[in-house]
Amino acid sequence: MMLTKRSQIIDETNQGQYALNIYELTPEKINENAPIVYIQANVHGAELQGNMAILKLLNLLEDKKINSKITLIPNANPYATSVKMGTYTYGRFNPITGDNWNRMYLDFFSQSQGQGLISDDEIKECKSKQDYKILIKNKVNEYRRYHQEYGINENKNLFITLQELASDADIVLDLHTAGVGCRYVYGPDYLKEQMKELNFPFNLVIPPEFGGAMDEATFYPWVKFHEIHKSENTFESYTLELGSEEIIDSKAGKADAINIFNYLVKKGVIEDKEIECPKNEATFCLLKDYKSFFAPKSGFVEYHKSPGEFFKKGEKIMSLYHFDKMERPEEVITPILAPVDGIVINHAPSSNVKRGMNILEAFTNFTS
Amino acid sequence: MMLTKRSQIIDETNQGQYALNIYELTPEKINENAPIVYIQANVHGAELQGNMAILKLLNLLEDKKINSKITLIPNANPYATSVKMGTYTYGRFNPITGDNWNRMYLDFFSQSQGQGLISDDEIKECKSKQDYKILIKNKVNEYRRYHQEYGINENKNLFITLQELASDADIVLDLHTAGVGCRYVYGPDYLKEQMKELNFPFNLVIPPEFGGAMDEATFYPWVKFHEIHKSENTFESYTLELGSEEIIDSKAGKADAINIFNYLVKKGVIEDKEIECPKNEATFCLLKDYKSFFAPKSGFVEYHKSPGEFFKKGEKIMSLYHFDKMERPEEVITPILAPVDGIVINHAPSSNVKRGMNILEAFTNFTS
Amino acid sequence: MMLTKRSQIIDETNQGQYALNIYELTPEKINENAPIVYIQANVHGAELQGNMAILKLLNLLEDKKINSKITLIPNANPYATSVKMGTYTYGRFNPITGDNWNRMYLDFFSQSQGQGLISDDEIKECKSKQDYKILIKNKVNEYRRYHQEYGINENKNLFITLQELASDADIVLDLHTAGVGCRYVYGPDYLKEQMKELNFPFNLVIPPEFGGAMDEATFYPWVKFHEIHKSENTFESYTLELGSEEIIDSKAGKADAINIFNYLVKKGVIEDKEIECPKNEATFCLLKDYKSFFAPKSGFVEYHKSPGEFFKKGEKIMSLYHFDKMERPEEVITPILAPVDGIVINHAPSSNVKRGMNILEAFTNFTS
Amino acid sequence: MMLTKRSQIIDETNQGQYALNIYELTPEKINENAPIVYIQANVHGAELQGNMAILKLLNLLEDKKINSKITLIPNANPYATSVKMGTYTYGRFNPITGDNWNRMYLDFFSQSQGQGLISDDEIKECKSKQDYKILIKNKVNEYRRYHQEYGINENKNLFITLQELASDADIVLDLHTAGVGCRYVYGPDYLKEQMKELNFPFNLVIPPEFGGAMDEATFYPWVKFHEIHKSENTFESYTLELGSEEIIDSKAGKADAINIFNYLVKKGVIEDKEIECPKNEATFCLLKDYKSFFAPKSGFVEYHKSPGEFFKKGEKIMSLYHFDKMERPEEVITPILAPVDGIVINHAPSSNVKRGMNILEAFTNFTS
Repeated sequence: MMLTKRSQIIDETNQGQYALNIYELTPEKINENAPIVYIQANVHGAELQGNMAILKLLNLLEDKKINSKITLIPNANPYATSVKMGTYTYGRFNPITGDNWNRMYLDFFSQSQGQGLISDDEIKECKSKQDYKILIKNKVNEYRRYHQEYGINENKNLFITLQELASDADIVLDLHTAGVGCRYVYGPDYLKEQMKELNFPFNLVIPPEFGGAMDEATFYPWVKFHEIHKSENTFESYTLELGSEEIIDSKAGKADAINIFNYLVKKGVIEDKEIECPKNEATFCLLKDYKSFFAPKSGFVEYHKSPGEFFKKGEKIMSLYHFDKMERPEEVITPILAPVDGIVINHAPSSNVKRGMNILEAFTNFTS
Repeated sequence: MMLTKRSQIIDETNQGQYALNIYELTPEKINENAPIVYIQANVHGAELQGNMAILKLLNLLEDKKINSKITLIPNANPYATSVKMGTYTYGRFNPITGDNWNRMYLDFFSQSQGQGLISDDEIKECKSKQDYKILIKNKVNEYRRYHQEYGINENKNLFITLQELASDADIVLDLHTAGVGCRYVYGPDYLKEQMKELNFPFNLVIPPEFGGAMDEATFYPWVKFHEIHKSENTFESYTLELGSEEIIDSKAGKADAINIFNYLVKKGVIEDKEIECPKNEATFCLLKDYKSFFAPKSGFVEYHKSPGEFFKKGEKIMSLYHFDKMERPEEVITPILAPVDGIVINHAPSSNVKRGMNILEAFTNFTS
Repeated sequence: MMLTKRSQIIDETNQGQYALNIYELTPEKINENAPIVYIQANVHGAELQGNMAILKLLNLLEDKKINSKITLIPNANPYATSVKMGTYTYGRFNPITGDNWNRMYLDFFSQSQGQGLISDDEIKECKSKQDYKILIKNKVNEYRRYHQEYGINENKNLFITLQELASDADIVLDLHTAGVGCRYVYGPDYLKEQMKELNFPFNLVIPPEFGGAMDEATFYPWVKFHEIHKSENTFESYTLELGSEEIIDSKAGKADAINIFNYLVKKGVIEDKEIECPKNEATFCLLKDYKSFFAPKSGFVEYHKSPGEFFKKGEKIMSLYHFDKMERPEEVITPILAPVDGIVINHAPSSNVKRGMNILEAFTNFTS
Repeated sequence: MMLTKRSQIIDETNQGQYALNIYELTPEKINENAPIVYIQANVHGAELQGNMAILKLLNLLEDKKINSKITLIPNANPYATSVKMGTYTYGRFNPITGDNWNRMYLDFFSQSQGQGLISDDEIKECKSKQDYKILIKNKVNEYRRYHQEYGINENKNLFITLQELASDADIVLDLHTAGVGCRYVYGPDYLKEQMKELNFPFNLVIPPEFGGAMDEATFYPWVKFHEIHKSENTFESYTLELGSEEIIDSKAGKADAINIFNYLVKKGVIEDKEIECPKNEATFCLLKDYKSFFAPKSGFVEYHKSPGEFFKKGEKIMSLYHFDKMERPEEVITPILAPVDGIVINHAPSSNVKRGMNILEAFTNFTS
């Protein structure tokens, strides 16, 4: 196994340059049946923990035998991480345009002819998955070339590069975090069974559609491919949510890495036995039942449930304080009650909330 | 004619409240044939000049006879205007979520049943435009009610309120500005002839589709209505771009108001003769030919053309300076040449640009 | 005892208004010997917990007898709390000017004659503390009047109002929090013994000088007064740091309120017995020995010590990760070792740090 | 004459590095009597035009003979320039700490012994200006070494480096701009006559004290030196304000460069004759008569006077619009009248103002 690193300048501000560092683990002997793996972290600037998971995974892989290429990209959005406002990281969206970094990937199927479009006919002409991987890569470059004349939008340049780097993969893991959250994973419905192999307690099942995020951007072309070729879709792509933003934690990072390591053993990527670790019961929820609570008024929220905690219908899950109403004690607190049973998955990292702010997200109608 | 004002709290931060002020001009005697008018300004927090145009229009209307209701909403997004970063206004998108304020309107045709959806059958059942106006208003409320349980997203609350306020209008004018820009107007292709009545020099023709902006959000339901009823679409909705952001200019505001006044005379809303003013030659451009230039590198841009100025293919329209390359004079300046003939419509308000930043927008393939 | 509330608009953005709410508890019968109390919270926009402490104190005071006026000001800087950038609060400094909100108070002794200056002669003429309290209040108004002609700086208007509201107090408590911190208190050296009555574990002793913060702004005039009158300074003013920012916690708030309640019992303000609670051992540190660690490089910090934890000289208190150096394992982590024994008091709330960023503050040379 | 360039990494965010580029022009033959020159630009991130002036000066110097070293530092604060919020540059203060970049220089006379303090005795021991230049440089390093243990504050590292780079200079020019401004210059009162040589129309005379800015930081040590040695202070240091921020303008840059060129000819630095250019009448104003207008209310300002324009006492220089008061025409506009005669020097770049915001600065009591 060999570790190589390539760097490329992916973004520039006036006087600053931001490099993408691409690590590749290459097996001594490639097993053509083993899936190629692509893992990136920190596309949202404040979501740091994935970097730690990648480092710990690399440590676990030392002296191990692998059967296929593993690409690792920590700090996948270096400019986003560099933007600080106060002591926090303003890295969820481009501070110039407002675009959410994880909605910027290219949908090859909504482009125009000659500008990156993948047509059904072109898919039909692909005789193998290998052909299709090359087509995807070529289409990224077609998009890039087409937009050369007027320049490429700052929000696209990085993301099509990431898509290009992931274009030959069979497994894509995009490492994120919530504001304040537990460990949960997003996966398409056709992978509901496979998701369990990641050993995450909370599993969010999404429709197999394009939505702008990396998991969708990478699995959707394969959904189309297998529809057209009437074959089984074995491409796997997940967004892993590794706890809370703004924090790195080496101990939790090791646990995250073990989960990924064991998953890659199961997939035949790593030629080794799994590492022992606690097994999580998997809870599932459909995207349509994944509910966001929006603040009914502005105020100061006290969160009564931690991410991962269960709540009953009618239970008080949050209290919204209004310290400007202290003369009327009955108006100081607006309780927020659960409309149904559920599980808190994450909440906002601040108690100070604007009206309508997304303050808490929960599984409802969950199953095991 | 009577002027009334209503105020409603539309947004709240912790300790701040932001009111929407709704001005209505009611005719003494309503002419049912005259179109109802809705005009709003300043949905993007830094785009101030529309407020001045509204004030000047109100001044022009003094002692005039009108035939139908005119609703005027200056400061249509009070929270956005209140967000300052440095001396500038950070008002193009929500600073918490990144959402562009002018992409937040509701598409009634992509909602779910019972959550605001307008179905073809419901349109068919509308016997008159009046019926349909009521349906639209009801659908806003259906959406609002459905989302009451978990709270309404901060970015939706304002925008569905604006849509509701505009729901009985036949003419909608949404007043914006560019960064540094000339006067131009966005209108749907079916209104290409009518657009001229606004006397704007530059006219951008867009497809009659939903895209999230106010003009689209208000004309698209009528596109659907008239498609289904196979009748002629007379609904008019435009985005008027009134120069540059961050500035108010009373003299230019008067000229803007005269253009709107004369347009409303032509439409039979104002019972008066037009006010004399310079007539502009109308230039048209399709949205697909409206080109954005993105900075090929970071650097300091010198803009060689002002908004409204023509350029020839091959002409140098911008120079990108790199003051960190002064030791190699040939690398200090990256010239940006015009790939085709065109007209500069607007450019960024800063010379300090990140790579990929949208620095200039231009008409190409324009016609008169 | 009677609770009254007054509100005044203290700040305005374009379309937003921000009110100061002033709560006063008035005794049924005033005891002239009991000190007048002023408590404010949340001058830094993200430092929320003081509001909870005030609410809980108000609850504890219900049905209690007090001997002197207690003024309570929650949300003392409403505009600051209203400024959100991403999900966090950008409230440490004015986003337009950069001025730290807690350095904006007026130093009466560095003003010009007629513009708010308190001269030694004027102090001498004050026959009583009461006279001096009136002088301070008058000087705030003199400053305000002088600056009327050109307008009052946005950063001063609020702060001189707070000073005015505190001008008749004998005890001032300014409730703050750290980024991520324990409970600690700032007090001037002449109050080193009295500080213990607050039952805070960590006590930071500062010189009796003006420095721009509320505690200094209120005690410094009394330092001068008693110097000139050669009398003992009994004025008490402290900054209480109540844990971490962005959070409210009702349980911790009750504990904070009990500490303040008991302190006010000791001072003769509340006519009651103390409430039982755990007693803290007081640790002291001089300001000169309160050390800030600045990041030697940019990177991702893992904090190995929690606020309140002791460390030994040479111990690794932080690790700075560089995930772009994974190919050279020995360069991935920069350990940050303790130069001396100490106690972590607070650290930054983000692991993502710029070079030179203040990442951790610690007591060194501490005593009990 | 030889041009050399050195680069050093001066700042780092997580994943970004920001280099300082130092250009030195060295004469073929040094004339010991000719003053050494140091020129920097763009310490405030949005104040771009100084870079253009430096480039144009370099062009003018081609083939010219110089008698002493000229150091040129464009982009002197690369991190500040890299911080964009929306399309504008948020570069006036550190977005993490709020510290104004141009108040961060070191005052050698308020440091502690061994931490960068320059004592009177040390000044006395300097036998020559050359000795003193070395002392200053050494003191920067003493400060740096002392702070090595806990790390150097992010706001100091850059600024002491700039001070060190300027430590051997006899002339320091710090190139800034206003928000929207004319050309004006800050100089200490002892240089009132010499300032005229810069050919700037507006001259602001400041006391010879330390205030945190570059001009003060560099002239103040020499004020002390010559006080102690009872010699004439010939050190020259100015802040040049080159118009408006966010803009570069090559034509205006050439005019700025000619003024600097001619000044350097007069000083004996350039061995050539002056370049012909329009001569400005110099108007002077003392700092105490340089008045800031603060917005009396929030609203939308229309500026009736351009920078450089004269106004009479009682004249309306601004109108503050309140578009939420359109129902009461007499309250729509708050006129702002001139309390005295004056000259507008600069105003804010936005019409959208918060109450108390610094909206306009003017010379009053000016003289020629």
